[in-house]
Amino acid sequence: MIMQKMKRIEIITEGSNLEMLKRILDKVEISGYTIFHNLEGMGSHGFHEGHLLFNEEDALIMLMSVVDAEKANDIALGLEPFLKKHSGAIFLTDIIRAKAQ
Amino acid sequence: MIMQKMKRIEIITEGSNLEMLKRILDKVEISGYTIFHNLEGMGSHGFHEGHLLFNEEDALIMLMSVVDAEKANDIALGLEPFLKKHSGAIFLTDIIRAKAQ
Amino acid sequence: MIMQKMKRIEIITEGSNLEMLKRILDKVEISGYTIFHNLEGMGSHGFHEGHLLFNEEDALIMLMSVVDAEKANDIALGLEPFLKKHSGAIFLTDIIRAKAQ
Repeated sequence: MIMQKMKRIEIITEGSNLEMLKRILDKVEISGYTIFHNLEGMGSHGFHEGHLLFNEEDALIMLMSVVDAEKANDIALGLEPFLKKHSGAIFLTDIIRAKAQ
Repeated sequence: MIMQKMKRIEIITEGSNLEMLKRILDKVEISGYTIFHNLEGMGSHGFHEGHLLFNEEDALIMLMSVVDAEKANDIALGLEPFLKKHSGAIFLTDIIRAKAQ
Repeated sequence: MIMQKMKRIEIITEGSNLEMLKRILDKVEISGYTIFHNLEGMGSHGFHEGHLLFNEEDALIMLMSVVDAEKANDIALGLEPFLKKHSGAIFLTDIIRAKAQ
């Protein structure tokens, strides 16, 4: 197996924002991702103190993509306008991708 | 974007424990989280050798919250009595939260 | 709580591959895992440039297991033949498991 250092980017937002999110990802040239549907969100999500990110129990989605490390910051930047207008959270984590030789 | 080092805490347990778990999280002052429903758990989960954490194919949930690094250990401690009495697993990971400026 | 350094292994593939995947995991002696069902996959998933890993909107699953660090590479190796024949992606991340004393 080839082990590659990558970045995982995860975006949690209301399901009603998904189509908009996909259009943004097209623009920043993420062509592949996995979506977790029908998540339950509660309260402020601990991210924005004093500000409710999500209404209680609104159905949320989490979109996850794994990209080259150098691209992850560009994607986060591309999503900044989205985050300013909509409830949501973006996370980056270090990840190793195991790829068949 | 502002990049903040945070901790992700994930709790996997039987769905029937969710209401109890929410009450515990209230006490340790986690006001926001995301819940993944209807997961399938199998076998010992690799955590407790020789001890079945979950019955085969019981419906599980995963509750995820992202908190300040210094708070993550406190939360884990607050969940210790729960873990002693109920099947479940708690994980902590380093994560970067990208926040709009 | 006891804090143990572990590895999380995640396998994303088509739902139709799940039974085969479980048989492979039996052979590499993973007896416990959690499965996320009904994920949506789109495009190349960003892993194989120029090659569609998943048909658009095929239902995917993500199987997650947490194992000793030294075992994670063995598991990835055991999955290599699967990855050569089937669409999928395998990720490894560092994780801390909080275990009740």
